[in-house]
Amino acid sequence: MDTSSNIGSWVIEAQLPIRFKVKNSPNLFSDENTDLLEFGGTGDKSRRLIVIDQNICQHYLKGITHYFDTHKIEIHVIAIEVTEARKNLDSLLLILGEMEAFGLLRRSEPLIAIGGGVLLDFVGMAAGLYRRGVPYIRVPTTLVGLVDASIGVKTGINYENRRNRLGSYYPPLAVYLDKAFLITLAPMEISSGLGEILKIAVIKDPQLFNLLEVHGKALVESKFSDCDVADDVINLAVQGMKEELENNLWETDLKRKVDFGHSFSPIIEMRSIDENRYRPLTHGQAVTLDVIFSSIISCQRKLLPKQDLYRIALTAKRMDLPTDHELFHEPLLILEALLDTMKHRNGSQNLPIPDAIGSAVFINDLTLGQIKLGISELTLLNEQLNMEYR
Amino acid sequence: MDTSSNIGSWVIEAQLPIRFKVKNSPNLFSDENTDLLEFGGTGDKSRRLIVIDQNICQHYLKGITHYFDTHKIEIHVIAIEVTEARKNLDSLLLILGEMEAFGLLRRSEPLIAIGGGVLLDFVGMAAGLYRRGVPYIRVPTTLVGLVDASIGVKTGINYENRRNRLGSYYPPLAVYLDKAFLITLAPMEISSGLGEILKIAVIKDPQLFNLLEVHGKALVESKFSDCDVADDVINLAVQGMKEELENNLWETDLKRKVDFGHSFSPIIEMRSIDENRYRPLTHGQAVTLDVIFSSIISCQRKLLPKQDLYRIALTAKRMDLPTDHELFHEPLLILEALLDTMKHRNGSQNLPIPDAIGSAVFINDLTLGQIKLGISELTLLNEQLNMEYR
Repeated sequence: MDTSSNIGSWVIEAQLPIRFKVKNSPNLFSDENTDLLEFGGTGDKSRRLIVIDQNICQHYLKGITHYFDTHKIEIHVIAIEVTEARKNLDSLLLILGEMEAFGLLRRSEPLIAIGGGVLLDFVGMAAGLYRRGVPYIRVPTTLVGLVDASIGVKTGINYENRRNRLGSYYPPLAVYLDKAFLITLAPMEISSGLGEILKIAVIKDPQLFNLLEVHGKALVESKFSDCDVADDVINLAVQGMKEELENNLWETDLKRKVDFGHSFSPIIEMRSIDENRYRPLTHGQAVTLDVIFSSIISCQRKLLPKQDLYRIALTAKRMDLPTDHELFHEPLLILEALLDTMKHRNGSQNLPIPDAIGSAVFINDLTLGQIKLGISELTLLNEQLNMEYR
Repeated sequence: MDTSSNIGSWVIEAQLPIRFKVKNSPNLFSDENTDLLEFGGTGDKSRRLIVIDQNICQHYLKGITHYFDTHKIEIHVIAIEVTEARKNLDSLLLILGEMEAFGLLRRSEPLIAIGGGVLLDFVGMAAGLYRRGVPYIRVPTTLVGLVDASIGVKTGINYENRRNRLGSYYPPLAVYLDKAFLITLAPMEISSGLGEILKIAVIKDPQLFNLLEVHGKALVESKFSDCDVADDVINLAVQGMKEELENNLWETDLKRKVDFGHSFSPIIEMRSIDENRYRPLTHGQAVTLDVIFSSIISCQRKLLPKQDLYRIALTAKRMDLPTDHELFHEPLLILEALLDTMKHRNGSQNLPIPDAIGSAVFINDLTLGQIKLGISELTLLNEQLNMEYR
């Protein structure tokens, strides 16, 4: 191929194949479930390093210890307190230090990460950096984790007040989904996850939207445990994410429908957490507010019918998600957030907005004037919701 | 493809294509040379962030500024002091902070890294992490950089006293090779680069070895500038690296011939730098000592003829490379280094040793006893060299 080496010019070409499984795996730690043994050695001298959210750990440590004892695998468990504010360099370095102390082998001792999206993001980043990448398994324990963080290959930490400013694309060996973890969550965390599900429903899946519209309230109240549609909602959400992400795992295409809800929210979420005078937003809450604000912009352009905007906002409200927040009333902050997002979209707005429930288009010409009009509309929408919703 | 989504199991599959150019580009900053303009915008409002070794900067800043001025590109130059000891988290964070302050766009403002292997390694790592990866161009300025760091996709920093313990596989947009940089180097840096060239010659290229054997001394003295074979040596070394690396860019195969010289050296190099009582080794010097020690092991097994070992050592000596060092006389340290390297080779030694000049095999059964015998042999070899070499 290389005929030009005599003049000193070479082309390096290669393909990196990626393949991993995302699998429903109920009762992950029951003796009969062998999913967690599929990768890495078992029996004498086999070891695993497990990084787990401290809150999950208190419920599951006994089960986890029993499981690996049964299969003669020595484990070292690192339980850590996880918050969005701790999704930072310190947490990354903590994990890297533990990997070094453990003396993790390069290939045959897959790291097991058990926790929500935040934990999976920074543990995945650590796995990607240690020895330029060691294998790891993702076990999401939050609803956001189950339907969102589990599918892609993105890892990351916040940096200089920017969400996920540092990170990588680093695929896991496998992702195991066990809905049972959801029972341990606070109601707000269920709502927050439903925010990401609402996002995917609005841009691409009317059937999923209908399920949320009808059963959203029950899903929050039952924590997905005692509700017929729970499996359908999770499976449709995962399927939708897979369809959107699989052909664009490395974000070669910067027009991403799944960026819906993630145009203004990153900076607003960070700001709400960093400054005490604001109501702190979870990721799913911030995404929901962005979903509503982006839908308002679509309404203003007569792309989305007003009753659909109302249905979206009402569905959010029924799932205990916020439909308003003081930071979404600051036009210059919204503009700043958009400008920052544009850098991430290489200078283009590429703003996904729904033109119907289940469909989206991209716009590139949002102005500060339109943002201000959007804010007025947000006020009106909330007045209407407050009047009509009991 | 996915027929199983109803039971909640999905397979995510994708291929990441990699393609980049490594090109001889003499007079890189002359107005007529457009290589550095090939990627990213030119003309009004186009910008570049340039990270450059401080020593190089003092020779080239004027030329660089003129070049980009001519092409109407605004530049921001970060000149940094680079040493192996500074290939650490602090340097990585410094670059990341500069990228954030610059407000680097995600795709159209390729970062330009100009320096030796150390700088290219940590700047490449920063480029890979910022926004999960921004484009960057590599301009190696040392001999090691030209023939080694420029070809692969590995990035990294040292961490917890371990060489390149953290890093990634992150390909550049392009690599431009300009031999003229070599004139600014200290003689020891030329020697050091020849250590990496010696490595590739011994394991796979008898022709290249012959060039080193005959012209090695002249190459050091001329700094590759006034010597007919200089281009041949660089081109053969690059070609050899390309052949070895291209089909194994992500080190899927842990039996790597190019690991020759890198089995014992990583820890010995770090130790020689960290502890004042030892003579500090450059990377290429440490690699050369490992090349010699590994060749001794091959001799002991009657794989490599003794006269070939002697030719290898003599060639190293002629190129002002060390053939002995106090740390290669500590059997337990050599064992420790091997055990650490084995973790990186997932528990196997996979030790490449030459079975002839230009050919290598792998062994997996080196013992402490053999290491001790190897040390005795190293002493004898050096006595012979010192007697015969003037």
